[in-house]
Amino acid sequence: EIVAAVELALSDGPLRGKRVLVTSGPTHEPIDPVRYIANRSSGAQGTAIASALASLGAEVVFVTGPADVAPPSGVKVVAVQSAAEMLQAVQNALPVDAGVFAAAVADWRVKRESNSKIKKQDGKLPILEFAENPDILAEVSQMKKDRPGLVVGFAAETDDVIANATAKRKRKGCDWIVANDVSPETGIMGGTENAVHLITDDGVEDWPRMGKGEVARQLAERIAAALG
Amino acid sequence: EIVAAVELALSDGPLRGKRVLVTSGPTHEPIDPVRYIANRSSGAQGTAIASALASLGAEVVFVTGPADVAPPSGVKVVAVQSAAEMLQAVQNALPVDAGVFAAAVADWRVKRESNSKIKKQDGKLPILEFAENPDILAEVSQMKKDRPGLVVGFAAETDDVIANATAKRKRKGCDWIVANDVSPETGIMGGTENAVHLITDDGVEDWPRMGKGEVARQLAERIAAALG
Repeated sequence: EIVAAVELALSDGPLRGKRVLVTSGPTHEPIDPVRYIANRSSGAQGTAIASALASLGAEVVFVTGPADVAPPSGVKVVAVQSAAEMLQAVQNALPVDAGVFAAAVADWRVKRESNSKIKKQDGKLPILEFAENPDILAEVSQMKKDRPGLVVGFAAETDDVIANATAKRKRKGCDWIVANDVSPETGIMGGTENAVHLITDDGVEDWPRMGKGEVARQLAERIAAALG
Repeated sequence: EIVAAVELALSDGPLRGKRVLVTSGPTHEPIDPVRYIANRSSGAQGTAIASALASLGAEVVFVTGPADVAPPSGVKVVAVQSAAEMLQAVQNALPVDAGVFAAAVADWRVKRESNSKIKKQDGKLPILEFAENPDILAEVSQMKKDRPGLVVGFAAETDDVIANATAKRKRKGCDWIVANDVSPETGIMGGTENAVHLITDDGVEDWPRMGKGEVARQLAERIAAALG
């Protein structure tokens, strides 16, 4: 960590003096004290992006759910569990020059979290009512005050990747969307590679399949160019 | 692993020649390709028990859900995700001299797993219908053929620990229940210590709070005495 801090201090990269927020990992939404709803995000792509941004000299605030991979060094780590906690951490991190929202935030939480373990009762199944989680990407994209100059969202899709992601960009109001296909047959979710499409005002760029570290480096360079 | 194998081969412990099954960890029940229901079991206690049984010379089949801790060396590891997969692996492991069912198996699975990511639609919340999972402990305890000579269940409770666990022992038909209090305030779930009650035909024994490794060693010795 000392090495990373020194590297950062010495860094003369294009993002020197810029503050960037990165969200990463899954969220866990509690059902009761022992059960929760999770998603298969490993946090690998978000972690690689935070690391790449820090290497270019950015001051990175890294808001992470319970990920499989360790957070990168040289960034400020804020660990959260649920979407509600993640939104709070994001709001606390503002203002920033750019925000990269790579976390796989749960769309829904359980409406009434139980304080006791829900018991099995003869022939009766639990009924879980859901409530919509805060939409962190949309909230930040549509802020009147403190909206980052560049807001980058992610769209993990299993069908109609480009169409769904293009619609998502418009609906949320973010500047860029990084879209990928997470169908089980691609092996992307939880794997080491990613095949993304970058969707901006200028249209759709199809990036070749490459390591998540390389996706991160190229995205960080694009962000540096956009903020430069 | 070679050292562990040699230790096992040289072992002259009281469980030499005995075959013991241990289940451990949480199960993950899929909702769709990216979401699942999980529970907070780290797998630490089950892993420690498998390790302790192996040290006493047992041939251990270790059926584990996606745990936080690595499986012990010197055991046969069978990795599973869901309760249905765990039951299948348990059936494949029989016959055994004793079965220790330490896994935190999900009581319910989602009735209809979706092959596509469930999408957020304006104002509409998903409805998740549940189906009851196989009750692995009850099924094994009530087997006519191949029932292990000793079946040990676990009861992780947040309220009325002894009463709930005693009722569970009777309902399932297992021989022993290891009961513990997993209320958030105890710090047991995910922690390094455990405070258990061993419930047998002879009544309830309250064990003092101790490390999970020590709980495992004492339980393994009791199992050796029971099988000896």
